[in-house]
Amino acid sequence: MKEFEFIKLLKEKCKGCGSTPGIGDDAALFDNFLVANDIVCEGIHFLKATPAEHVVLKVFSANISDIAAMGGTPKYVLLGIAVPKAREGEKKNIIEAIKKSAGLYDVEVIGGDTTSASNDLFVSLTVIGKKGRFLLSRSGAGEGERVYLSRPLGLARISLEKELGADFDIDAFKHYKMMAEKELGEVLGNVGTVTSCIDISDGLGRDASHLSEESGVKIVIEEKRLPFSHLKQFDVDKVDYFINSGEEFALLFTAKKEHAVDSYLKDNGFEVHDIGYTQKGSGVFLSNGAKRISISSKGYEHK
Amino acid sequence: MKEFEFIKLLKEKCKGCGSTPGIGDDAALFDNFLVANDIVCEGIHFLKATPAEHVVLKVFSANISDIAAMGGTPKYVLLGIAVPKAREGEKKNIIEAIKKSAGLYDVEVIGGDTTSASNDLFVSLTVIGKKGRFLLSRSGAGEGERVYLSRPLGLARISLEKELGADFDIDAFKHYKMMAEKELGEVLGNVGTVTSCIDISDGLGRDASHLSEESGVKIVIEEKRLPFSHLKQFDVDKVDYFINSGEEFALLFTAKKEHAVDSYLKDNGFEVHDIGYTQKGSGVFLSNGAKRISISSKGYEHK
Repeated sequence: MKEFEFIKLLKEKCKGCGSTPGIGDDAALFDNFLVANDIVCEGIHFLKATPAEHVVLKVFSANISDIAAMGGTPKYVLLGIAVPKAREGEKKNIIEAIKKSAGLYDVEVIGGDTTSASNDLFVSLTVIGKKGRFLLSRSGAGEGERVYLSRPLGLARISLEKELGADFDIDAFKHYKMMAEKELGEVLGNVGTVTSCIDISDGLGRDASHLSEESGVKIVIEEKRLPFSHLKQFDVDKVDYFINSGEEFALLFTAKKEHAVDSYLKDNGFEVHDIGYTQKGSGVFLSNGAKRISISSKGYEHK
Repeated sequence: MKEFEFIKLLKEKCKGCGSTPGIGDDAALFDNFLVANDIVCEGIHFLKATPAEHVVLKVFSANISDIAAMGGTPKYVLLGIAVPKAREGEKKNIIEAIKKSAGLYDVEVIGGDTTSASNDLFVSLTVIGKKGRFLLSRSGAGEGERVYLSRPLGLARISLEKELGADFDIDAFKHYKMMAEKELGEVLGNVGTVTSCIDISDGLGRDASHLSEESGVKIVIEEKRLPFSHLKQFDVDKVDYFINSGEEFALLFTAKKEHAVDSYLKDNGFEVHDIGYTQKGSGVFLSNGAKRISISSKGYEHK
């Protein structure tokens, strides 16, 4: 049974457990709080050789990003961590990393659990956040809206490939240091004109397709609008890397052009890129002048 | 670095992250909610041969029990689960176990995460509960109060030893099925006369000593008051097994005699055993007529 089948079956089976009105996409809603949980496992999400402190920051970012994508403000975290004998010597660094990550995101560690592990490092993080004035979701985008991206993408993938052995001039652990858009998410959750939002965890193509499917609109990304300058120094297919880089934790969101969310955000010191538009239909397309390539399910493929 | 040192250092280091007023003992408080997180790891908390469905119920019970011990009502859970290849075939049973456990405790699965694992099964559960009218803690017991236990203890240890190979006539997985006192905890959190509460996770001796330390009172357990009949069929030191059986998830609580909490609870269909009293001083003692044995730190030791 594959992961997505497991989750699907769990969702079906647990329908009988009740249903929370307003269960979100990245996080679940209860009362005025949002909550999300992410787990990472050695050998699956990171290498045996990866220092645990990098893993800690990443699991914080992944969780904080889930709250940001729904327009909330992360407040509290609970950390569950199982440490194998081989990483015994890293425990002090792990604690420092927890302190540092909590400080960076201004969240409070209010609980958790720690244990030994037989073989692999395992980290679970639960984050609880306050809902903003508006609950952002993947399903609110309408036709004729603009699509915004909070920052350029691609470096997470280049860094990951470096860690896996590729010859790039980049910090091999940079992808563990991609920060979640905590402040931006908070602002977006209080601006009434943002219609939908998602964070970039699977890559721009795939995450845009979640948004497209849930909202029932077609998304067109205009290649000429994508900011590529940060990729210039790397010998890669820039479009490919921009569109297929996961765990970037940037935010992708939609709003009506006339509401000028981009101007408002720029005026308030946030970076924002207007990269495309929605229209009637379905799927996600990359538009390059006359050509349109589907990047819905598989992302962008090398030519 | 041992587990308790790790937690202690984490607590110290994370002081700078802020402090939630009312952080609890078993669960943390935010707003009107209680939250707890427990993790279990194959090879540490359960055997490679233990069916995952038993592990799932136990991790639910451990978490629900944390909320019960603080007088709250568990409402929502988030489950993080990493499944190794060797347990691939158990995935359907795991989902059934999640559904069943959520049903037994009437809690809603509102989120979580699932992944493959390299070697070991790993389960993380976060439970969120509503605070009762009163927040129960370990620190509220005064002198001259009665000490109550919700049910007889000992079978969890006997069953655990059976699973580990001992020759007892008992279900080797019974200790995975010890239920948390969800309903009792809820009632205790709404009765204004309960002064302190803890769940039995480390054993009566050790958990009573947490309560004793936090409250600053001496606890005297009267041996003649302990209900032993359920242990008659087993060839064990009954006092030892009663006092040193962990993960029983029974509740231990204190109240003034004149408030007759025990009568009130019995009238409402709850089992409750008046097993001793508090007095000025410190430590936990087992009283057997004239003799008093300290059972504070190490529990009760075989003669």
